[in-house]
Amino acid sequence: MTQKAAMIGGGVIGGGWAARFLLNGWDVAVADPDPEAERKIGEVLAGARRALPMLYDRALPAEGRLSFAGSVGEAVTGAGWIQESVPERLDLKHRVIAEIEAAAGTDTPIGSSTSGFTPSQLHERARNPGRLFVAHPFNPVYLLPLVEVVPGPAADAAVIDRAEAILRAVGMAPLRVRAEIDAHIADRFLEAVWREALWLVKDGVATTEEIDEAIRLGFGLRWAQMGLFETYRVAGGEAGMKHFMAQFGPALKWPWTKLMDVPELTDDLVETIASQSDAQSGHLSIRELERLRDDNLVAILRALKGRGAAAGRLIADHETTLPDPEPGDGPMETIRRTIPIDWTDVNGHMNESRYGQVFSDASEMVMAAIGADAAYIDAGLSYFTVDVRIRFLDELLAGEAIRVTTQVLDGGGKKLRLFHRIFKADGTEAATGEQFLLHVSLETRRTCMPGEAVLAKLDALVATHARLPRPDASILLP
Amino acid sequence: MTQKAAMIGGGVIGGGWAARFLLNGWDVAVADPDPEAERKIGEVLAGARRALPMLYDRALPAEGRLSFAGSVGEAVTGAGWIQESVPERLDLKHRVIAEIEAAAGTDTPIGSSTSGFTPSQLHERARNPGRLFVAHPFNPVYLLPLVEVVPGPAADAAVIDRAEAILRAVGMAPLRVRAEIDAHIADRFLEAVWREALWLVKDGVATTEEIDEAIRLGFGLRWAQMGLFETYRVAGGEAGMKHFMAQFGPALKWPWTKLMDVPELTDDLVETIASQSDAQSGHLSIRELERLRDDNLVAILRALKGRGAAAGRLIADHETTLPDPEPGDGPMETIRRTIPIDWTDVNGHMNESRYGQVFSDASEMVMAAIGADAAYIDAGLSYFTVDVRIRFLDELLAGEAIRVTTQVLDGGGKKLRLFHRIFKADGTEAATGEQFLLHVSLETRRTCMPGEAVLAKLDALVATHARLPRPDASILLP
Repeated sequence: MTQKAAMIGGGVIGGGWAARFLLNGWDVAVADPDPEAERKIGEVLAGARRALPMLYDRALPAEGRLSFAGSVGEAVTGAGWIQESVPERLDLKHRVIAEIEAAAGTDTPIGSSTSGFTPSQLHERARNPGRLFVAHPFNPVYLLPLVEVVPGPAADAAVIDRAEAILRAVGMAPLRVRAEIDAHIADRFLEAVWREALWLVKDGVATTEEIDEAIRLGFGLRWAQMGLFETYRVAGGEAGMKHFMAQFGPALKWPWTKLMDVPELTDDLVETIASQSDAQSGHLSIRELERLRDDNLVAILRALKGRGAAAGRLIADHETTLPDPEPGDGPMETIRRTIPIDWTDVNGHMNESRYGQVFSDASEMVMAAIGADAAYIDAGLSYFTVDVRIRFLDELLAGEAIRVTTQVLDGGGKKLRLFHRIFKADGTEAATGEQFLLHVSLETRRTCMPGEAVLAKLDALVATHARLPRPDASILLP
Repeated sequence: MTQKAAMIGGGVIGGGWAARFLLNGWDVAVADPDPEAERKIGEVLAGARRALPMLYDRALPAEGRLSFAGSVGEAVTGAGWIQESVPERLDLKHRVIAEIEAAAGTDTPIGSSTSGFTPSQLHERARNPGRLFVAHPFNPVYLLPLVEVVPGPAADAAVIDRAEAILRAVGMAPLRVRAEIDAHIADRFLEAVWREALWLVKDGVATTEEIDEAIRLGFGLRWAQMGLFETYRVAGGEAGMKHFMAQFGPALKWPWTKLMDVPELTDDLVETIASQSDAQSGHLSIRELERLRDDNLVAILRALKGRGAAAGRLIADHETTLPDPEPGDGPMETIRRTIPIDWTDVNGHMNESRYGQVFSDASEMVMAAIGADAAYIDAGLSYFTVDVRIRFLDELLAGEAIRVTTQVLDGGGKKLRLFHRIFKADGTEAATGEQFLLHVSLETRRTCMPGEAVLAKLDALVATHARLPRPDASILLP
């Protein structure tokens, strides 16, 4: 049964939460008194619909239903997840929490997106504080996996466990924070860096653009994949972390005494930063910048997914929970997916080599179906592609949804011959692909006979597909 | 003529500089009294030889010659770039600078890798301070493009300009720092974050691993591509940077008063961090971690290159300065390159679809050779691939160097038929690929005749290649 999430507050953060749940198949009810809420969420959702499915190499569940509730009570009724993302004023949060509690189930998890308040502050007037906790996400919520989960002293451990399971199910990475402190964890770093950046701009040492370059051409690249300590561990070399601390600890202390003051946010400083930012990025609208950001994030996240590293590992793990394509009467449906940005050229057209990628992935689905799966490959046997023909019939664009059907033309002994068709959402055929594969031993790298179980399953599949019409010889390999 | 660079100090940073210059075709002389220097640089260089060429879609220049000098004077004689990377002690730096100046050309740029000293401090005893400046890189120097260039008040502007041109020529991104301050720019951020991280570990709020997760699953991904201000500009929405400052400026100030103290680096704190780091990453050796780091960085940098964004744009720009393959008597040599990590599966084997990528790239080289280049495509005409056959003959591994030859089988009118062969470094044939292309109008997306200049060049190429032996029909499309 489709589950329902309630989003109280529909700004950039609330909208991002809404998109994250909707695109993972939840119905979402939004409560926000802003008359512009529907338009604003629509814009966030448009970005999310484009970007989030690109992270995955299979289709997400069917999107849930979005509705706008007339009241907080209406939104939270029947909800299995409630997320509070109203502006950062404690009195307002207390009022909204009271409205939520009046209508919500008593053990429904209530996450607060607050970056400024601790769970204890949120709990002050709560009737049932055990299920109310901080769940602090990062913008864009629909792409960045991190959620800081701060339970606070009154937490109900069972609810927090359940909350984390729900966050994982929508592809996020809950980070349980051991103690409640101001600004949780990540924002303390952001604030420290922000303070430094204000000083550098105020003192004329660097412009906003130079600071951005100093981050994104250097340590930003390190932190995106290893964070702080693991990076420094590597820097310390074979002697390890203690050596690093001994070598760099004192050196890092030198300029600290000068970094303690907080610059005043005067009108002059605000003006300086705003005008430097205009000079740096003012030629692009915020929508254009958002799209560049999302495309870059998708490309980086997919790169990390390819490595099984950091945020990419999470996406790969989440992908294993997504449903397989369903077998049908005709050819197998082997692939349902979205064309990701990193498969396309600068004009957003899919590179021709990625048609081959799709067909290669489709062949893996057939292999899995006959038992030549990951375990089989680990045991030293597999199929290798030796000959391929691809006919290009139509262009495909970034973000476009496709499905692939696969027919087994021949199989038996060491041989396997597959014929794939890529279809666009409107049913147009975009390409055909034929693959001739041979069964090999991964040890000798030579051909050999498949295992008996695989052969039996393959024979059955060949028999079924023999009843299907065969493609004309003119579009097959010679 | 091959240029010479001198590396004074051959640790992780000096070794990274050496690798950066060597792999961009410079001869490099290293001076380091450490008897282990040759081994240590060898290890850094092995990592760099694997990783750096993967960033590019064409081959780097032939690697320069590495030598170890018996003295600083011997190393710097005849050098066009001198880089000082000795330990961070000012008296040592002054002594080494004196040795450099005694033998170096008077206008040879001398960069110092120091993170702790200002140019003015380095200049204190220099005979010729105008050409001595801070050139502060980031580890791994062979992959991260950022170099903070701090000229200092005594700088010779012409030398600094020349130095920046040299840094760009080896693929780096010099960031000229406007004023000399302690720790330049980026390290001030690193120190601010480091201080925060020490507090969080000391107070038991988070472990080293939790802190790394908080960074690499959230803001680290934002910073890798946009940095700080551009990210916040987007967060501010259509109302812009001033709105962001007004909204978040005061909120960010709240916890500052608690962030001012510096934690003491007691033995206990060092022990806590070291043991948490062991628990987090101790199952991997530093070499293994370095390789993971490099592979992740290559994958991220190539993802950004595909987007033309941030550090990826720099790599793409640098790539345009690399030499084209040379035309020969036989088939065209269309590709010389290294197999990058993002083209391979978890076992390091090239995915089958990337064979198609190589052939597609080879076809683009032929198109460029007949004048169907970027400008031609911008003008609305191009060739589209309609049919492809690929025969897979051998496996290819990450980091492996390949070359591709291309023969025009047929051309004329709207048609173009190409036959490619991929060769491994030992001459083994790894695959053949045939592509049938049609000339199209990008406006109507329909076939049309090529321009006359293109037709004329194509006819000449067809005539030349007609003299070459034709592949057997059994390995061609039907």
